[in-house]
Amino acid sequence: MSDVLDLACELISRPSVTPDDAGCQSLVAARLERAGFKIESLRHGEVDNLWATHGSGGPVLALLGHTDVVPPGPMDAWTSDPFTPTVRDGVLHGRGAADMKGSVAAFVVALERFVAAHPDHPGTIALLLTSDEEGDAIDGVRRVAATFRERGTRIDWCITGEPSSTERLGDLLRVGRRGSLSATLTVRGVQGHVAYPHKARNPIHLAAPALAELVARAWDEGYESFPPTSLQVSNIHAGTGANNVIPGELHVLFNLRYNPHWDAAKLEAEIAALLGRHGLDHTLRWHRSGEPFHCPEGPLRAAAREVLAGFTGVAPEESTGGGTSDARFIAPLGAQCIEVGPVNASIHQVDEHVRVADLEALPDLYLALIERLLS
Amino acid sequence: MSDVLDLACELISRPSVTPDDAGCQSLVAARLERAGFKIESLRHGEVDNLWATHGSGGPVLALLGHTDVVPPGPMDAWTSDPFTPTVRDGVLHGRGAADMKGSVAAFVVALERFVAAHPDHPGTIALLLTSDEEGDAIDGVRRVAATFRERGTRIDWCITGEPSSTERLGDLLRVGRRGSLSATLTVRGVQGHVAYPHKARNPIHLAAPALAELVARAWDEGYESFPPTSLQVSNIHAGTGANNVIPGELHVLFNLRYNPHWDAAKLEAEIAALLGRHGLDHTLRWHRSGEPFHCPEGPLRAAAREVLAGFTGVAPEESTGGGTSDARFIAPLGAQCIEVGPVNASIHQVDEHVRVADLEALPDLYLALIERLLS
Repeated sequence: MSDVLDLACELISRPSVTPDDAGCQSLVAARLERAGFKIESLRHGEVDNLWATHGSGGPVLALLGHTDVVPPGPMDAWTSDPFTPTVRDGVLHGRGAADMKGSVAAFVVALERFVAAHPDHPGTIALLLTSDEEGDAIDGVRRVAATFRERGTRIDWCITGEPSSTERLGDLLRVGRRGSLSATLTVRGVQGHVAYPHKARNPIHLAAPALAELVARAWDEGYESFPPTSLQVSNIHAGTGANNVIPGELHVLFNLRYNPHWDAAKLEAEIAALLGRHGLDHTLRWHRSGEPFHCPEGPLRAAAREVLAGFTGVAPEESTGGGTSDARFIAPLGAQCIEVGPVNASIHQVDEHVRVADLEALPDLYLALIERLLS
Repeated sequence: MSDVLDLACELISRPSVTPDDAGCQSLVAARLERAGFKIESLRHGEVDNLWATHGSGGPVLALLGHTDVVPPGPMDAWTSDPFTPTVRDGVLHGRGAADMKGSVAAFVVALERFVAAHPDHPGTIALLLTSDEEGDAIDGVRRVAATFRERGTRIDWCITGEPSSTERLGDLLRVGRRGSLSATLTVRGVQGHVAYPHKARNPIHLAAPALAELVARAWDEGYESFPPTSLQVSNIHAGTGANNVIPGELHVLFNLRYNPHWDAAKLEAEIAALLGRHGLDHTLRWHRSGEPFHCPEGPLRAAAREVLAGFTGVAPEESTGGGTSDARFIAPLGAQCIEVGPVNASIHQVDEHVRVADLEALPDLYLALIERLLS
């Protein structure tokens, strides 16, 4: 067994269902400490966070990952136990194989090789791990970033190991992610009987023109490689089932996925103004999940493009699609962020897996990236 | 105790919670048979219906009522047992006192007096009772009307004893009721993740402009003494609570209360066309609760206006307000229909009641009406 496969299996066999790290980080910390890294543990609440650095000063290149995994779901739906790493036909199966214990193992192996080959490299190479990426994402990288901001810890470049590839390893380079903003809208009317509409105020009727305007609105036409900003109403509820009662309140949930044309404050102001123009008696509660980030052209993006093209033979797709990742917390520190990791087809599903050949290529890929940036 | 109070108490003491007649109609039938009426029992399923007639040929004047009552609700909230008629301070308490065993008792007393005084009256005087007005209203007057239509039983004038008065007996003459039409609308989209809106079709977004148009539409400006036709959305539901899922379906319930400008078929066609113009993938299920009816100027309405004005000293308000009544099933037979009954302030509530003075005036009021029309 190769070093990276061996370490990936050790990590998968620790059932680190979010936010439980289950000993993954101490395993990584012990190896990196032996390799000469400085280790810092930043535990918040139930969440373990690890910050390991080698070298000093800038530029600072951080590898970012998580040791927690999503729950396995129905155990008997798995072909083999999700926490017993199993290779079948050249494919490693287990919860976290792709998202993202394979990447974490590859990070560790690449870091060990890098500092062995370049003990006096310029700047700082670092690894940041959390056990709260799949969960609430409050006591994980969000909290660590706040600490870094307070104490002036700087990150210039950040490579997240999230499974970004779509069909083959290296076919996609994630150069940003959209922001996500959620709202809970309550529109108040006056309850009554449908036979006496003049004594009631129907909140569904009052809100209908505002909702029609809100969902018809075009927000922008996209931003560089970002798709257009999108608002989606996910829930709408009013009424108790009876068909003779005008309900007193309407409840609406909606979510925006937005590109760097916007930030949360601007979107909130825009939507508050729209609802205000309709004169609704309403309450709007916002939940900001993370601002968008975008890696502009520069050394990091160029290095990644070249390394991936060299690996696959064709230039990678450069994308800003998908959901959110912890890079949203690192980008606001002023870091340029990209994401490079294995094929994501099986993540969050039963029989999650990664090809052994891909897993064994990953340390070379990360090492090539690090060497381009820090030597 | 007066004859009408005595009979009202006998009826209230029979716990005829809809659709159980609990022996009320056999009591009425026995009395009217003694008075010379022909008695016909039209039982359908669990529902008792009574058709009692005196005289022959036209014009046919039918008194319409029901012996069933709504459930009493929490028994311990009542000051006295709902099925133990109790007079306190000149007020008779009990479930059905106002809706409408008081009216039924007054009908019986008025009919006995009328045929005693006018044994050879012109035309036919009749009483129609059901035990399914407060319930499903399927096996009651709806079914009887179908039978009448089949066999050619004619009704020219119909006086329903529903509690129509608002503050004092006789202050309101109901000269029609709006129609009621309900719809269940399902709009289909394609479920998906809010981060990938191009792979989904949000049924809330697709339906929003159609709903805005539907609720903004003015249907008419009223009809004689009818208020304008009104559409009210009573329920709207989509989504399972998660804010990252675009729902696959939207469910909407709405109800129309409409005046004689419209019938159900015309409204259904109009709304189907509106939804059709929006190109929605949808299903629309209709439930017709009853067409509107309206008593035009003529002998019945004139007689009722004069009798009530004579009784109270002022002309009654002539109204088409309120919910629905069984008159909706009689009107389509070609009958002119009005509703005259006691004060409705306590109906369907705990401590339902009727003033004894009002109850004792009711037989005179109905008798005066019958005499004007059939002598």
